[in-house]
Amino acid sequence: MFEELLKHGYAKRSTGTEYAFTIINRLLNIVERGDREGFVKSYKSIVNSLERERPASMASWNLLREIGHHFVENEFVGLKEKILELREKYDKACWDAANIAAKRVVDGEVLMTISNSLCVRRMFKILVDEGIKYSVYVLESRPGMEGLETASYLDDLGVKTYLIVDSAARFFMKNVDKVFIGAEAIAVNGALVGKIGTSILCLTANEARVRVFAVAPLYKFSYETIHGELIELPEGDWRSLMNEEVRKTLPENYNARAPIYDVTPPNYIDAIATEYGLFAPQAVPVILRQVYGGFPPPIPSIEEILEKMR
Amino acid sequence: MFEELLKHGYAKRSTGTEYAFTIINRLLNIVERGDREGFVKSYKSIVNSLERERPASMASWNLLREIGHHFVENEFVGLKEKILELREKYDKACWDAANIAAKRVVDGEVLMTISNSLCVRRMFKILVDEGIKYSVYVLESRPGMEGLETASYLDDLGVKTYLIVDSAARFFMKNVDKVFIGAEAIAVNGALVGKIGTSILCLTANEARVRVFAVAPLYKFSYETIHGELIELPEGDWRSLMNEEVRKTLPENYNARAPIYDVTPPNYIDAIATEYGLFAPQAVPVILRQVYGGFPPPIPSIEEILEKMR
Amino acid sequence: MFEELLKHGYAKRSTGTEYAFTIINRLLNIVERGDREGFVKSYKSIVNSLERERPASMASWNLLREIGHHFVENEFVGLKEKILELREKYDKACWDAANIAAKRVVDGEVLMTISNSLCVRRMFKILVDEGIKYSVYVLESRPGMEGLETASYLDDLGVKTYLIVDSAARFFMKNVDKVFIGAEAIAVNGALVGKIGTSILCLTANEARVRVFAVAPLYKFSYETIHGELIELPEGDWRSLMNEEVRKTLPENYNARAPIYDVTPPNYIDAIATEYGLFAPQAVPVILRQVYGGFPPPIPSIEEILEKMR
Amino acid sequence: MFEELLKHGYAKRSTGTEYAFTIINRLLNIVERGDREGFVKSYKSIVNSLERERPASMASWNLLREIGHHFVENEFVGLKEKILELREKYDKACWDAANIAAKRVVDGEVLMTISNSLCVRRMFKILVDEGIKYSVYVLESRPGMEGLETASYLDDLGVKTYLIVDSAARFFMKNVDKVFIGAEAIAVNGALVGKIGTSILCLTANEARVRVFAVAPLYKFSYETIHGELIELPEGDWRSLMNEEVRKTLPENYNARAPIYDVTPPNYIDAIATEYGLFAPQAVPVILRQVYGGFPPPIPSIEEILEKMR
Amino acid sequence: MFEELLKHGYAKRSTGTEYAFTIINRLLNIVERGDREGFVKSYKSIVNSLERERPASMASWNLLREIGHHFVENEFVGLKEKILELREKYDKACWDAANIAAKRVVDGEVLMTISNSLCVRRMFKILVDEGIKYSVYVLESRPGMEGLETASYLDDLGVKTYLIVDSAARFFMKNVDKVFIGAEAIAVNGALVGKIGTSILCLTANEARVRVFAVAPLYKFSYETIHGELIELPEGDWRSLMNEEVRKTLPENYNARAPIYDVTPPNYIDAIATEYGLFAPQAVPVILRQVYGGFPPPIPSIEEILEKMR
Amino acid sequence: MFEELLKHGYAKRSTGTEYAFTIINRLLNIVERGDREGFVKSYKSIVNSLERERPASMASWNLLREIGHHFVENEFVGLKEKILELREKYDKACWDAANIAAKRVVDGEVLMTISNSLCVRRMFKILVDEGIKYSVYVLESRPGMEGLETASYLDDLGVKTYLIVDSAARFFMKNVDKVFIGAEAIAVNGALVGKIGTSILCLTANEARVRVFAVAPLYKFSYETIHGELIELPEGDWRSLMNEEVRKTLPENYNARAPIYDVTPPNYIDAIATEYGLFAPQAVPVILRQVYGGFPPPIPSIEEILEKMR
Repeated sequence: MFEELLKHGYAKRSTGTEYAFTIINRLLNIVERGDREGFVKSYKSIVNSLERERPASMASWNLLREIGHHFVENEFVGLKEKILELREKYDKACWDAANIAAKRVVDGEVLMTISNSLCVRRMFKILVDEGIKYSVYVLESRPGMEGLETASYLDDLGVKTYLIVDSAARFFMKNVDKVFIGAEAIAVNGALVGKIGTSILCLTANEARVRVFAVAPLYKFSYETIHGELIELPEGDWRSLMNEEVRKTLPENYNARAPIYDVTPPNYIDAIATEYGLFAPQAVPVILRQVYGGFPPPIPSIEEILEKMR
Repeated sequence: MFEELLKHGYAKRSTGTEYAFTIINRLLNIVERGDREGFVKSYKSIVNSLERERPASMASWNLLREIGHHFVENEFVGLKEKILELREKYDKACWDAANIAAKRVVDGEVLMTISNSLCVRRMFKILVDEGIKYSVYVLESRPGMEGLETASYLDDLGVKTYLIVDSAARFFMKNVDKVFIGAEAIAVNGALVGKIGTSILCLTANEARVRVFAVAPLYKFSYETIHGELIELPEGDWRSLMNEEVRKTLPENYNARAPIYDVTPPNYIDAIATEYGLFAPQAVPVILRQVYGGFPPPIPSIEEILEKMR
Repeated sequence: MFEELLKHGYAKRSTGTEYAFTIINRLLNIVERGDREGFVKSYKSIVNSLERERPASMASWNLLREIGHHFVENEFVGLKEKILELREKYDKACWDAANIAAKRVVDGEVLMTISNSLCVRRMFKILVDEGIKYSVYVLESRPGMEGLETASYLDDLGVKTYLIVDSAARFFMKNVDKVFIGAEAIAVNGALVGKIGTSILCLTANEARVRVFAVAPLYKFSYETIHGELIELPEGDWRSLMNEEVRKTLPENYNARAPIYDVTPPNYIDAIATEYGLFAPQAVPVILRQVYGGFPPPIPSIEEILEKMR
Repeated sequence: MFEELLKHGYAKRSTGTEYAFTIINRLLNIVERGDREGFVKSYKSIVNSLERERPASMASWNLLREIGHHFVENEFVGLKEKILELREKYDKACWDAANIAAKRVVDGEVLMTISNSLCVRRMFKILVDEGIKYSVYVLESRPGMEGLETASYLDDLGVKTYLIVDSAARFFMKNVDKVFIGAEAIAVNGALVGKIGTSILCLTANEARVRVFAVAPLYKFSYETIHGELIELPEGDWRSLMNEEVRKTLPENYNARAPIYDVTPPNYIDAIATEYGLFAPQAVPVILRQVYGGFPPPIPSIEEILEKMR
Repeated sequence: MFEELLKHGYAKRSTGTEYAFTIINRLLNIVERGDREGFVKSYKSIVNSLERERPASMASWNLLREIGHHFVENEFVGLKEKILELREKYDKACWDAANIAAKRVVDGEVLMTISNSLCVRRMFKILVDEGIKYSVYVLESRPGMEGLETASYLDDLGVKTYLIVDSAARFFMKNVDKVFIGAEAIAVNGALVGKIGTSILCLTANEARVRVFAVAPLYKFSYETIHGELIELPEGDWRSLMNEEVRKTLPENYNARAPIYDVTPPNYIDAIATEYGLFAPQAVPVILRQVYGGFPPPIPSIEEILEKMR
Repeated sequence: MFEELLKHGYAKRSTGTEYAFTIINRLLNIVERGDREGFVKSYKSIVNSLERERPASMASWNLLREIGHHFVENEFVGLKEKILELREKYDKACWDAANIAAKRVVDGEVLMTISNSLCVRRMFKILVDEGIKYSVYVLESRPGMEGLETASYLDDLGVKTYLIVDSAARFFMKNVDKVFIGAEAIAVNGALVGKIGTSILCLTANEARVRVFAVAPLYKFSYETIHGELIELPEGDWRSLMNEEVRKTLPENYNARAPIYDVTPPNYIDAIATEYGLFAPQAVPVILRQVYGGFPPPIPSIEEILEKMR
């Protein structure tokens, strides 16, 4: 099923968190079947797909790492429980981050968001449940058009929502009180990898002194960046920029480029809401240290885990 | 034919200059037929359409004003010649502005542009004719997707072109040497009305110290802004944000907004290339004074002309 | 009467325009009495007071210069008519500038202003007369507290008004759509001399991308700055910073400083509304050239006029 | 006595530290009397007053929390000693922060400050004791006019002091070497709650590349902000903006607003001097972690304490 | 003699104005000898040298153009008088611009300058003659080290002078009140071509809110830029970066680059002092229009003149 | 030998790391000789030289402190091993930081650097060893001209290198992808003390959105800044600004100033690469805490060590 999703290119449209959950569930199924060989094979195939399809999805990498680490140390002993615990912990982390972010919204405010982030959606849900009135400008988020899903979600919640083209962000910014964004990954210096357009949205908010909050559980942090690694930003198929009809009118060797993510510098983000509280992006190392008991966190790399799985 | 265009919503996709030419040609036809009554009726209907459909198209307003002024003073005497002369003069002004802009491009540079501007296209043509090598990032320019036309045009010229989503402008800006934009209108303080997304593009260029040049003949200047008038920025049909298929999945009272133009402040534009030379945007009044022999230019308003036509 | 005002320190509290009108009226009285000697004496005494009390009041200097120039050339012949004409022209210029500025305000907007400017007040009046709804944050404008007068005026107009301390400008800026300021003088490079606090207000607006409009007739322009002259900025009596009661508690040699004006750089002002239209501050020289028929304008200095009066 | 102060509205004028000391002393008196019931009642009444009168005073909240926590755990056992220890520790923390801040001042420098901060005053004292020559511009700090007290204090120290209106900060900034500010509260992302006008002062310093140092012991940090809570910023009585005489001339339904605090973003503050050293504002979480042995610090909330007191 | 200078590479070290005077004097000599053929030959050879050695020296180009134009129209008739008049006019223009700039300096101020500009030197002279006390930081201005000459000149005037390395400009900027720069050329949009390092100096001043004034007579304006032409910026011999001794230690194919000029954007310059007064850089077109009686100024190009000389 | 270096003024030209190694080696020699008295004497003399010659060299101070601390506690017992271990550890830290920094460079990029930093040089070496192609603009770094050494080093590595004057940094910045700098010291708030010109280079990079990376092992951090201490920035001999020949032409009392270091604010640095990973400059305290097991780190001061040595 998961592979079906990948095949149809839907993966890119799912939120980073949903994508990570799909991975967890898939491995859980195999563990429940007790299929050791199938587990190793699936694990490796998921690593490959992830590398190819969504290399910046830190939540997926971090969860995969924890599952792989457990397997390497204890094989199937307690693995099912470990995976269930991780799933629950991650789910709760999303809600906690959303809850903390929700406290920044004051009744009557106008928000702006981009793409389709599960954490941001949960924040919207919490606000509605708490009876806080607000309205939202949603960027459509070309080329994936994930903004349409966020807008529909908000519409179902009964929130006044305006869907706008990405390039109209500056036009409407003067009406906006706060911007909320999700993250695909957060680097150790506080830089945030988000859906393409996130950095230009944050620049525009910054120009107009509008506050920007990222909502992201700790699973989005990229340990590799501590060691200087660049986060790989995959480029999408440029054919996604147009429909088949238009495509046909273009010459065969037509050039177009469709980056899927971009990097927002930390000075354009006011704070990151995590399950451990709210911080300046530059304070990321403190949290990592607290949670992992050391800095740099003593965590094996995926390469080491794969090595041991053989 | 012109009405047909309007009906099919193509007007918005034509460049401001093409739109103006269509108006000129339509009036020219009637003048050639010697149909006085038809002229007055058409003139008024064009004014209405313009007000409704493309109120920021200064070229159209300025040409209409000159034609109306001549008619009010001299009826059909010399009107055909006047219109022909205006058409030629405007056409030449576009080429002259394009020529001046072309001189700013150095061999091997990487350019970025948005939407579909006749003047910018002519500049691209001149560069190719002069054997200057360059490549261009073209923003697709949602919701109208006029960028597709510019990209196709460049492709036909044999220029290396990258079509990108609007929100990827910041992602690629680090590769860019200069940005060229067209204008729908230029206000007296140097602010520029352009296709939605122009202001966010210029902000992004400014952040990265990349120079921005507007290419626009004098017919784009808005005399009304001298008297404090705001340029009316029409909003498009939000249904243009999605295709019918997507549209059907949304609730009936769905909210979306589709502004077509935005305003770029003069401090984000390095210079405007006009048929009278290159200037800082703030120097606009000098040129108006030179061309019209006084400041504010002694020009009747459309309202005065319509009044006299009765 | 005028001297009485000066004596009581009220002069500082009158707007620059009111101050200039007082000067005109005083000279008019003497001219009507036909008292040549009294005229010369009063003229010189006004020049002295102006130099001492309000040296940055360009409107006063410019009107004085025109009156003095006429007297030097023609003695009393046509002088009364000249003064009446100047008074009317200046009054009309204020209304014209106010009218142009009023066109920038859209129904429902929230404005912010500082001090007490006659031109800005007239703009407020025009907006009310035109049925445009708006509200205003008024800075109290220490130490003169002229903001109280503007607030009272707005209150009488029935406009929703918030009087705030000067340092709360940034706190409330997020609610504000546009800032309107008056001017004591405008320098040739577009820098604006305004009530102390104007430059910090404009900086704050700029930080939040809120547009700033100055409302000022041409009489506020300082020709001397063309020749490099610095505009003299008088410092007020620091005792104005506190009432007598507080004053008494302080040591005899207590230090305090009370500058009355400051200089706002042109890049913090979006446009200046004048009777000749709206401009970027940097375009000031064009207007001077247009009005005076040359640049630098061929105008005698006050020193030359005083010389000839002897 | 404390209630008397509150009644007379003097509380607002005391520094945050003095306010906290008053609370400590009041509770100490009751503890010394051994009046358990009185203690609980007073504690609750102080919580109420604080909430109403000075909700942003983090030092007061943090000290109250520690005292309440001890009482809930140990009743009166060791409570007197605990309170005495807290008082001494806090007092020492102020001196330590002041000492660290003082090291940033070089002989002959010109400083600027706002309001009346005990820590900043102590820094001024230390500088004088160490024989360092400096002069200070003090903003009067409308509406509370606390600047008058700081200016008097400096005058008594024999320091050359200039009292200026708040809006003259930009006028004099060109003469200034460093800005020192106190804090009412510091949020987890490094944002600083200070007397109204602090943020505009820091913006102005930032524009002119003048360094800004906050002087604040750890007791000013707001743990609640870790959990996303907004710091409540009380608004003062707008009547404080004018004296009775002026007040009477205004209409009954007159509008005015008097916020007492504002928020300065961390990027306008170069460093915070605390008793634990000097830091970038973004590094706040590190210190909290160090001092409380975990992050978020394991501290009960006031609500939990009040709950248990019943 | 002029050729001697060129041969020894001194031309680069002379100020733009001195260079222009050398050209004038050389042609004057030939005209006085009545040698028509020699004149044409010298004129062409100077054009060639200028193109090769100092293409950005607008004063030289503009003077050459006026002389050539006269010759083409009137041969030797009145040519000597024309050249003498130009020389005198240009000399006076330098003094006038220097006089206007001098008015911006207040007693006791600290200035900073770069390179060796005749106009700026004259301003320094005027200040000393007027008894105004000031001190100057002079950037040494690598690689030409022209700063040494300015520093020596100031030293002879008895002005307190600090010679500093170029990269120390930011270090000392906190002490500086105003920056004065000369120009090699000024473009129509107000951009200024100056000695390499000028733009980084102006950026640094801008960061610290220190005002920048350019001192440049109208002869420095580049008419060609009106038509979009880029000003050619010659690169020097990189061997000038080091002495022979160091040079010898480097490999034969060693890379180094020595640009001689750079471009400062108009928004980093507060005003340009010219013989026609002080302006915002963006107002350049007004002055050109005033002086040449039209815009673009009706001036033949050097190419046209050379054509006619044949 | 070391003293010889100092005598000849070469010390300033060695990198901070080389300077520290020289100190280590010198003390090692004495320890190996077993000369206790000589050790104390040399230690004190090195402290004196360091204070006088290179007070900002944090690596030297930190290493000296660790060696002195060991001596005070254990005399010569294990001292040799301790010094050897420190030398190796520091050497490795440089390589580790260089390795992490090297990961930020992508094939084909253009870099810019200033002065001569051992860590940056090692990064260049690693890149070449890994087969990554890149080119470098090297600022000559007046007055010490250390850039010449870096350029020669790169040339030997076969890297395409351009030596440029310091003030040409802005001219070439448009071609640059990333800037790499070394550090003499890093303050607790992330401010960086580097070779004079570093801060202006970083400002220029910042203006053009070019990323800046500092490469510096933990030994460069200044613990004293935690306690508010200012880092002492020595000024060089101004005679270094010119050769003897030029010097002789100047008056005896000639003024010139030659600061050797300047301070770059943390917001101009994107990240610091250390042996413990890559961080935002503001996160410095986290690392110190991690490495030293507490914050502020429990480290004796040099003064305390000297005291005990007696």
